Amino acid sequence: MPTFKSDKLLQVSRALLGAAGASEREANIVSDLLIEANLCGVDSHGVSNLKAYIDLIEQGKIKPGAKNVIVKESATTALVDANWGFGQVACSEAVELVVGKAERNMVSVVGMLRCNHIGRLGAYSEMIAERGMIGSICANSDPSVAPYGGMKSMIGTNPISLGFPAGTEKPIIVDFATSASAEGKIRVALQKGEKIPEGWILDKNGKPTTDPADLYEAPLPPVQVKVVGAQLPMAGHKGFGLALAVDVLGGALTGTGCSHDIHVPNEWANGVLIQALNIEAFSSMEEYERRVDKLITDIKSSPRTSGVDEIQMPGEPEFRMREERAKSGIPVSDVTWNAILGVAKKYGVDVDKLMGK
Amino acid sequence: MPTFKSDKLLQVSRALLGAAGASEREANIVSDLLIEANLCGVDSHGVSNLKAYIDLIEQGKIKPGAKNVIVKESATTALVDANWGFGQVACSEAVELVVGKAERNMVSVVGMLRCNHIGRLGAYSEMIAERGMIGSICANSDPSVAPYGGMKSMIGTNPISLGFPAGTEKPIIVDFATSASAEGKIRVALQKGEKIPEGWILDKNGKPTTDPADLYEAPLPPVQVKVVGAQLPMAGHKGFGLALAVDVLGGALTGTGCSHDIHVPNEWANGVLIQALNIEAFSSMEEYERRVDKLITDIKSSPRTSGVDEIQMPGEPEFRMREERAKSGIPVSDVTWNAILGVAKKYGVDVDKLMGK
Repeated sequence: MPTFKSDKLLQVSRALLGAAGASEREANIVSDLLIEANLCGVDSHGVSNLKAYIDLIEQGKIKPGAKNVIVKESATTALVDANWGFGQVACSEAVELVVGKAERNMVSVVGMLRCNHIGRLGAYSEMIAERGMIGSICANSDPSVAPYGGMKSMIGTNPISLGFPAGTEKPIIVDFATSASAEGKIRVALQKGEKIPEGWILDKNGKPTTDPADLYEAPLPPVQVKVVGAQLPMAGHKGFGLALAVDVLGGALTGTGCSHDIHVPNEWANGVLIQALNIEAFSSMEEYERRVDKLITDIKSSPRTSGVDEIQMPGEPEFRMREERAKSGIPVSDVTWNAILGVAKKYGVDVDKLMGK
Repeated sequence: MPTFKSDKLLQVSRALLGAAGASEREANIVSDLLIEANLCGVDSHGVSNLKAYIDLIEQGKIKPGAKNVIVKESATTALVDANWGFGQVACSEAVELVVGKAERNMVSVVGMLRCNHIGRLGAYSEMIAERGMIGSICANSDPSVAPYGGMKSMIGTNPISLGFPAGTEKPIIVDFATSASAEGKIRVALQKGEKIPEGWILDKNGKPTTDPADLYEAPLPPVQVKVVGAQLPMAGHKGFGLALAVDVLGGALTGTGCSHDIHVPNEWANGVLIQALNIEAFSSMEEYERRVDKLITDIKSSPRTSGVDEIQMPGEPEFRMREERAKSGIPVSDVTWNAILGVAKKYGVDVDKLMGK
């Protein structure tokens, strides 16, 4: 598994997206967010998606140059048609929109339809937190999770992220799928020949199983595996409730479509709802920051269970990994790197030259 | 265990609260919400709280006649000082405030400080959903849950509720504590001499345990038990993240106080944040309702796992129980009923007469 400095990987990503039709601005925004995900250790949302994005461009599902169009708007809200442009570009612009409205009107909600894969949600809630506001974002996605009591994939992993500014402490960035586990973790266990915990998946007959292979159709190919079982919601009915909430907010409200309807036009679609809340509507920033800093330091200094070195706040593992990988570089799996080299060859991009070899 | 018709129980509750100093309006609002919780099957938020509320009145912690005062306001937001009145009264009024602002400005957020116990959160998100809007509410509470990796109670069970209107279907009412389990369920297992699932609690030494007695200080008295262990967050770091989010929203933002600071003035305090989102900012009601109805019917008709008779949507068990108990009556535990009779005697309320005996 090769390891690359983030700036080198950025250049490769930008060059490939540019060669496939992205403008310089689009290639920069998408590449920045993919490599940021890798830096955070969330490799499932990093450059492993580059080939898929370029495939989607070739299939006409990602449309470089597409512009966000506001189809419904008020002082506090907007519904944005992303016109199937790059999800990261559309969503970064939506963040600006929602922050601007919340600056003027204290709270704002922006929904998006016809939006491609936006990547790691924590990036956007963190952008809003960096602007001094409380940010939240949720996105529905193609179905892979069974309802509580059900056995068929009917809802997406439907993630949620919330970002809270702090004072001298790092912001609190909550970011999770409403399924019991990320699909990526199940795939990793499969590759390593390990069992997975109970409560993560059902097999194709709706039976609980700890064998990750039961999620997929046999025989197992190396990369694109077809899911025949179903993932389970986190915490039973609670995760099911949250997943449905995301489906209504990201799907029904925006017009993207709920649950198993969403992937009809594009299985990489995300139905997105973003919110920004202006802290000064309720508290001075100083008071708010003091309280949040105290919450963080009190919790981090509270007694730990045996074997736990440190209580980490939500977002802290990603901040740590970002510092670490900024120095040590980003490991890229052979599968991902070979896919990148394949695309580079196809588009005549000289990866060795970009890497300074 | 006696069983009572809801209207009889309502009369008893109103009479007791009135005798203890509540106005007729306050007694009606609080009683309606307590008995509604019982009707929904959520007995932990029903008349079992009556004696505690009356104790709080006697201690000066619930102040009958207190008025909500808006201490900070914009067109879309308000921070409300509930002045330690009845939580249910303060929160019902805050619902009116948030709905009115969202009717005019599409989205609204109202926070509350110095607010007493508001009871079952689902009641308020359902009120907002009944007004045709998407409602959400969260409340932080006195600490009983350990951080992920920690062993000391640092955060409350910090519940969240979300209410979504539907068309011909019943609204979706998501309502859950961010802890692995309600404390009430642990107490019930203790009384029945049953084990609890792994992952619910730690004992006083921070060790995982399935013995509910390990949560409490020995020897175990019949009613007021002191917690010495800690509950655990639902779904590990995910529930921990949500609980912190509730602490920041309900505690830091409103000025109520986070986590272990909240109970300093009043251990029954709730730091509350309520939001209403106007669906018409994004979609026609007809389109939205059609999509949500389809989501509900598609999910409910999807294949079930073995042994499951029906997939129930969030809120559905409570709607069912409400219909059932409206007919069959509300069972009240002997402990609760004796406490009510004790208060009645103290205040000279003739329960037999109210019951038509």
